[in-house]
Amino acid sequence: MKNPLLAPELRESLQAGNEQELRAFCESAHPAVVAELISALTPREAWDVVRHAPLHLRAAIFSHLDEDIQEDMIEFLGRNDIARIVSDMPHDDRADLFKRLSEEKREAILPALAQAEREDIRRLAAYEEGTAGAVMTSDYVTLKPDLTAAEAIERLRKDAPNRETIYSSYVVDEKRRLLGYVSLKDLILARPNARVGDIMYSEVIQVRVSEDQEKAARMIQKYDLLALPVINGGDALVGIITHDDALDIITQEHTEDMEKLMAITGSHEAGVYLKTPALVHFYNRAFWVVGLAAVGLVSGLIIQSFQDTLMQLMILAFYMPMVTSTGGNTGSQSAAVVIRALALGEVVPKDALRILFKEFQVALMLSLVLGVMSWGKVMFLSQGTPVPEGFTLGWIGLAIALALGLQVVTATLVGALLPLFAARMKWDPAVVASPALATVVDVTGLLLYFWTAKALLGI
Amino acid sequence: MKNPLLAPELRESLQAGNEQELRAFCESAHPAVVAELISALTPREAWDVVRHAPLHLRAAIFSHLDEDIQEDMIEFLGRNDIARIVSDMPHDDRADLFKRLSEEKREAILPALAQAEREDIRRLAAYEEGTAGAVMTSDYVTLKPDLTAAEAIERLRKDAPNRETIYSSYVVDEKRRLLGYVSLKDLILARPNARVGDIMYSEVIQVRVSEDQEKAARMIQKYDLLALPVINGGDALVGIITHDDALDIITQEHTEDMEKLMAITGSHEAGVYLKTPALVHFYNRAFWVVGLAAVGLVSGLIIQSFQDTLMQLMILAFYMPMVTSTGGNTGSQSAAVVIRALALGEVVPKDALRILFKEFQVALMLSLVLGVMSWGKVMFLSQGTPVPEGFTLGWIGLAIALALGLQVVTATLVGALLPLFAARMKWDPAVVASPALATVVDVTGLLLYFWTAKALLGI
Repeated sequence: MKNPLLAPELRESLQAGNEQELRAFCESAHPAVVAELISALTPREAWDVVRHAPLHLRAAIFSHLDEDIQEDMIEFLGRNDIARIVSDMPHDDRADLFKRLSEEKREAILPALAQAEREDIRRLAAYEEGTAGAVMTSDYVTLKPDLTAAEAIERLRKDAPNRETIYSSYVVDEKRRLLGYVSLKDLILARPNARVGDIMYSEVIQVRVSEDQEKAARMIQKYDLLALPVINGGDALVGIITHDDALDIITQEHTEDMEKLMAITGSHEAGVYLKTPALVHFYNRAFWVVGLAAVGLVSGLIIQSFQDTLMQLMILAFYMPMVTSTGGNTGSQSAAVVIRALALGEVVPKDALRILFKEFQVALMLSLVLGVMSWGKVMFLSQGTPVPEGFTLGWIGLAIALALGLQVVTATLVGALLPLFAARMKWDPAVVASPALATVVDVTGLLLYFWTAKALLGI
Repeated sequence: MKNPLLAPELRESLQAGNEQELRAFCESAHPAVVAELISALTPREAWDVVRHAPLHLRAAIFSHLDEDIQEDMIEFLGRNDIARIVSDMPHDDRADLFKRLSEEKREAILPALAQAEREDIRRLAAYEEGTAGAVMTSDYVTLKPDLTAAEAIERLRKDAPNRETIYSSYVVDEKRRLLGYVSLKDLILARPNARVGDIMYSEVIQVRVSEDQEKAARMIQKYDLLALPVINGGDALVGIITHDDALDIITQEHTEDMEKLMAITGSHEAGVYLKTPALVHFYNRAFWVVGLAAVGLVSGLIIQSFQDTLMQLMILAFYMPMVTSTGGNTGSQSAAVVIRALALGEVVPKDALRILFKEFQVALMLSLVLGVMSWGKVMFLSQGTPVPEGFTLGWIGLAIALALGLQVVTATLVGALLPLFAARMKWDPAVVASPALATVVDVTGLLLYFWTAKALLGI
């Protein structure tokens, strides 16, 4: 992703002390692009480039740097340089940065900031991770309802340089209670002397500060919003979440879902696969893998308890992996489908019976196809295998096919039930990791397999 | 998700023919909310409600209805009603609608539309699914560079009612080639007589019409854009993709990734889990499940070929499932991590060696822990199991532990390699479904298991 070609040229400019060239470079592209290009340099060199940018760009470029580079820079930057950058950063980004700094570093920087900024940072950083409060920003515009449209536009023009967005304004009373919402488009289209209170929408789509960030992002998506206002317990406006935050939240939630589904723990920050030490990757994955391997002893015990059956009919051992792994596959599929439908709001836990009925139908169809196939497989592949007296290959095949069918139905229903149960308990449905599910249905599969064989073949 | 409480009230208003109440209902909430509420009615009743809404709201509500309800409505709506709705719909949504209609229905509706609209629909509907062209809209504002800021604002004011956004305008020459970009904020902040050509940004972040839609959405995310301009092969501006489309694209891509990872084929449209017939669910899942179960015969054949070994040392059968399923788990984890890192642009296929080295380190650590654990497990659990002469439980445990370790390393590297290979070949890395991977490493696992046992125990 990096463009290492530019690094030597930048280093040349740095050595030559060509300030104009460095400034021009910082202004030549989107701050995200500049941030990406200077990431190929050391943090110190990168700062030497960035400090030539105009002040407002400096903060924008800094905001787009990876978190670890930001932290490295903070280490050697002077208090005043930091304070100047922090003042100009988007309010939500700077609160995030503060959360990651050491107590010591925070105490060093805070005194260099204006009183209002200190309070803003402390307030935004106080909300619990994962809530709407933790991702909202405080740089938005509020209007009083008795302003005219022309006055409001004038107000926006003055505020514009310091606000993340001027396209959405929020109308509040003297206690900051949210009365309505008005877009810049509405203001421009209105008669200049119309009152804001008369042209605003009073049915404002809003979210509580303690609400899940994913819920907030899904609201922005559903209602095609530019920004979603956030209110506290007293109905006062405390922040907004913007459309670009919604994209980041949904991407982050999806990464988490996928990792949970694959039984990977720990949090994943952006841009870090290669930077994350192998030990951390190990730690994130070991918990479940080792745990599941430990649970796998149950499978071992089950086989052990049926060892006489196996001794008598060794052919059963050949088809054992097919039964367990097909159970894992079908269970994972139904779990994934249900988890996704829950995440997208297509279904709610109350729909459980309808979902189970649907999954049951799907499972029956899969069972039929798989059962017929596995019977054919036994008949064809094990033709030459010696079968002990009193048994026929046809009956053995039937027992295996029946066990596979039962296993598919069980695994599919378990796969659908677990995320529904988790959602009902207000847990994250994605906690039902696919490997965990596979391990659980390994156990049911082996039991069904040996029971069916014993019952049908009378061993 | 539906609110069935309102349906009876709406039905009452319908029966009473209370037009004012129905109109007020349509105006009382966000079109997405109205669409959700009337989805509880039959399509015919829903239309009877919607037709009381003012014209522009009618199209907005219709656009937010589920696709199948839209199609049901189209069936009984008159040509002129359809034409009026279609004229007011967002241009990208109406092109999508057209793609889903039958040839016959299209031919019936097109003549009722204005020439320009017909061409616009045909043009937008012509782009291949999944490309930037297929998701872009054509209702944006273009400006000439010699306009003044004040003239441009006046232009936007006039265009506002018919455009999806007036916050981003694109400056084009007489051949519609993209010269620059200017935001409404820039225009408001500029001196009224400043030329658009002087205040515009000429380094416009843009995308080709044939580019992958996910790439476009990721650009919107990376650069925090409200809209991304789309250009054709001749560098002419042909459309824009807006921030709300980016959210929908990323959500759709997430669902596809998750389904591919769980080996579910077929496309998933929004809001349809319960509406999708069981047969379609079956069809989407059967391909891989049945295919993998068929491949599972290889596992059976391997075990069959080692049946003498098994007969001699039945204890090996007890730990077989643990070795194969742990391999599946670790392989799925590394595949998921690499697929996600590729999707987020954290790594590129060129990083393959660094990724494999990292995964190798992780795998070694996992192997060590799992190996020691499984040796302990064998020693503890199989204490009482009779061991044939010439073997000791300690050596058998060591063989099982070593096989498990080798299997974890193999599975982890295969899991990381397959998505990298897919990305290198420009395929979707997520095609490496977790169940497919589990089936593949089942085979390697069994081979490693029996080979190690034979080599170490000299069977």
